[in-house]
Amino acid sequence: MLKSLNLCEFTPKEEIENRIIELKKRMAEHGFSFAVIIQNVDLFYFTGSLQNAILVVPLDGEPVFFVLKSLNRAVVETSLKITPIKRDKDVKDILTDMKILKGRGGMELDVVPVTVFERWKNILGYDNITDISRLIKDVRVIKSPFELEQIKRSGEIIGHVFKKAKEVIREGVREIDIDAALVAEGRRMGHQGLLRMRGLNQEMMNCFVTHGYSATIPSGADVPISGVGITPAIGQGSSINRIGRGVPVLVDYGGGYNGYITDETRAFAVGDMKEIFKKGHAVAADIIEDAMIFGKEGVVGTEIFTRALHKAGKEGLDDYFMGHGEGKVGFIGHGLGLEINELPVITPRHEIILKEGMVFAFEPKFVIPGEGAIGIEVDFIVRKHRLERVTDTSMDVVYV
Amino acid sequence: MLKSLNLCEFTPKEEIENRIIELKKRMAEHGFSFAVIIQNVDLFYFTGSLQNAILVVPLDGEPVFFVLKSLNRAVVETSLKITPIKRDKDVKDILTDMKILKGRGGMELDVVPVTVFERWKNILGYDNITDISRLIKDVRVIKSPFELEQIKRSGEIIGHVFKKAKEVIREGVREIDIDAALVAEGRRMGHQGLLRMRGLNQEMMNCFVTHGYSATIPSGADVPISGVGITPAIGQGSSINRIGRGVPVLVDYGGGYNGYITDETRAFAVGDMKEIFKKGHAVAADIIEDAMIFGKEGVVGTEIFTRALHKAGKEGLDDYFMGHGEGKVGFIGHGLGLEINELPVITPRHEIILKEGMVFAFEPKFVIPGEGAIGIEVDFIVRKHRLERVTDTSMDVVYV
Repeated sequence: MLKSLNLCEFTPKEEIENRIIELKKRMAEHGFSFAVIIQNVDLFYFTGSLQNAILVVPLDGEPVFFVLKSLNRAVVETSLKITPIKRDKDVKDILTDMKILKGRGGMELDVVPVTVFERWKNILGYDNITDISRLIKDVRVIKSPFELEQIKRSGEIIGHVFKKAKEVIREGVREIDIDAALVAEGRRMGHQGLLRMRGLNQEMMNCFVTHGYSATIPSGADVPISGVGITPAIGQGSSINRIGRGVPVLVDYGGGYNGYITDETRAFAVGDMKEIFKKGHAVAADIIEDAMIFGKEGVVGTEIFTRALHKAGKEGLDDYFMGHGEGKVGFIGHGLGLEINELPVITPRHEIILKEGMVFAFEPKFVIPGEGAIGIEVDFIVRKHRLERVTDTSMDVVYV
Repeated sequence: MLKSLNLCEFTPKEEIENRIIELKKRMAEHGFSFAVIIQNVDLFYFTGSLQNAILVVPLDGEPVFFVLKSLNRAVVETSLKITPIKRDKDVKDILTDMKILKGRGGMELDVVPVTVFERWKNILGYDNITDISRLIKDVRVIKSPFELEQIKRSGEIIGHVFKKAKEVIREGVREIDIDAALVAEGRRMGHQGLLRMRGLNQEMMNCFVTHGYSATIPSGADVPISGVGITPAIGQGSSINRIGRGVPVLVDYGGGYNGYITDETRAFAVGDMKEIFKKGHAVAADIIEDAMIFGKEGVVGTEIFTRALHKAGKEGLDDYFMGHGEGKVGFIGHGLGLEINELPVITPRHEIILKEGMVFAFEPKFVIPGEGAIGIEVDFIVRKHRLERVTDTSMDVVYV
């Protein structure tokens, strides 16, 4: 019954097994004897269930999946053996009996708050614990065929949303009214309801509709186009700005299916579009076409960024590339998976070598101060000899 | 222009001044010489702006508001003097020059991750920093008249949503389709787009539509009614369950206006409702009426819980009160403000004395295993001689 109300497939047993094998491999390389996983997304990744729970992975031996609540749900969702507990303090005796608490332990210290970490060291009576989050991210960066399937379903939701956008974008309508209609359309098509972003202060809404001035205003967020939003308490997103003619409406929408996030942007326009935006769109499309041919396993992310920047420069658009002034960001792509800010990041700042099975959003965008913004965002899967698009939705400007 | 695209009022100067005075008062009492505030919600509370920024409040002297990005936006939004910086490392020299780094410092260690804290101790070259989050929460728990105004606007959005629910709840419709329509309605009425919940793994969607079986299934979340959701990756929320006759549809919706969250639940039913649900609803209404008269400044939260439990017991409903089996939760109310899990918590576990200006959601609910759930949730403002409802929306079951 629980299963039948879910729209999505539960994570297969072999998936979970492989993920834990990959984690252990890296734990061995980096000298970790055990990992204590408590963040909800990592818990879902390694167990298939998102409960009030603790997963302990010893380097030698089977993982121990402690579940506080809901036991009934965990039993249906996970293929792992469950160890029910009443209080998180019960973990210590069991781990001590199993002789797991030895050597160096790892926790997700990039997200676990200081007071929570202190409490866990206290519970375990164990101090030798360091950050293991990079190892977890390195496992998660390569997507399995099962995960790619979920990502494609997530991408399909975006397709429905862009089709709906063509119906609802009209002159005089407010950005938030378009936003409302598109979020609802996504939800009806199976959107999970929220998008996750890892780390302190990282938050993300499902939809950003921006147009003209509102598309050009930077925010505290590390994104090329933020929107003004409707309150300083959020400080980004769609605003009450009304759609006018000749300037693009950008719809940046995050799909979410069975945990997996996709993230694409398309441009819409009422009537014809000013020359500068047409040019920006053509350059963005050219950058994407180029990356699809050039990008593949083994290519370094920095090279993809450099080629894009070069193309923008050749057309005299470098000043507007990936934002303008204080709003300029230092990347053109970001990894996708269960969180919207995964690896790889496509930036000149880190040398990341692309590997088959990586997935990232690629978003050449231009911000013309005082006027508006233009650009495209598509999602790529890294393959041996090319980049594959997650969806085949057209990248063209949609005139309404 | 930035201001005109916002729907909401910016935080007045006197608000910010008073909040900082209240924080300093508590810092003096608890022996803190300075506070370093980096979490986005606390930053918004103490500055009126939510940027990539750091607020340092010395016990003696003016607060220093360091802004990385967006400077342009911060300038318009805050009444504080801004100190622009290029890198967060620039903070150290300025604080050293101002002789602020002395005595015991405080940071929000309930939310700041371990690696972020280590980085900040390194940047500041300063080790004597402990958790100051309880002091911040204690300031935030008392809402000013300006804040209460925002909360009432947030409550108005809920009113619109419940009206819309009467139109869209029909036999055979899926929970997520109702959810989609209600979230869209809220957004059109000025909903900020997301709800915030403090702490690791705390996440909240704007709307939970639950009906029959799906309302009875617990999740990992600490709430009486979770819903099944449509994917184990989220594990709560509206599902693809279709609405039938005789069993209530619960709509639990979170308003969000200018940062401020409200949270109410109403019951809807297609056709007549089974006797057990009618009884549960009447008891829930009675518990709320009683709390409104009994509750006031000076009353202890535990007493409110005890009276509610007693009323449930007298009607033979204690087994179903606030959940059933492993799904039973230990509270009947939770504080509201910029986050949905603020103080006060109305629970038998902590002795919290109500004070004028506190705001909390109060949710007597009953879960009948295998059948469905019933209950009401309303939001209260604590006044000197009573509890005041945030909205005057009817609590009656809506038959459609």
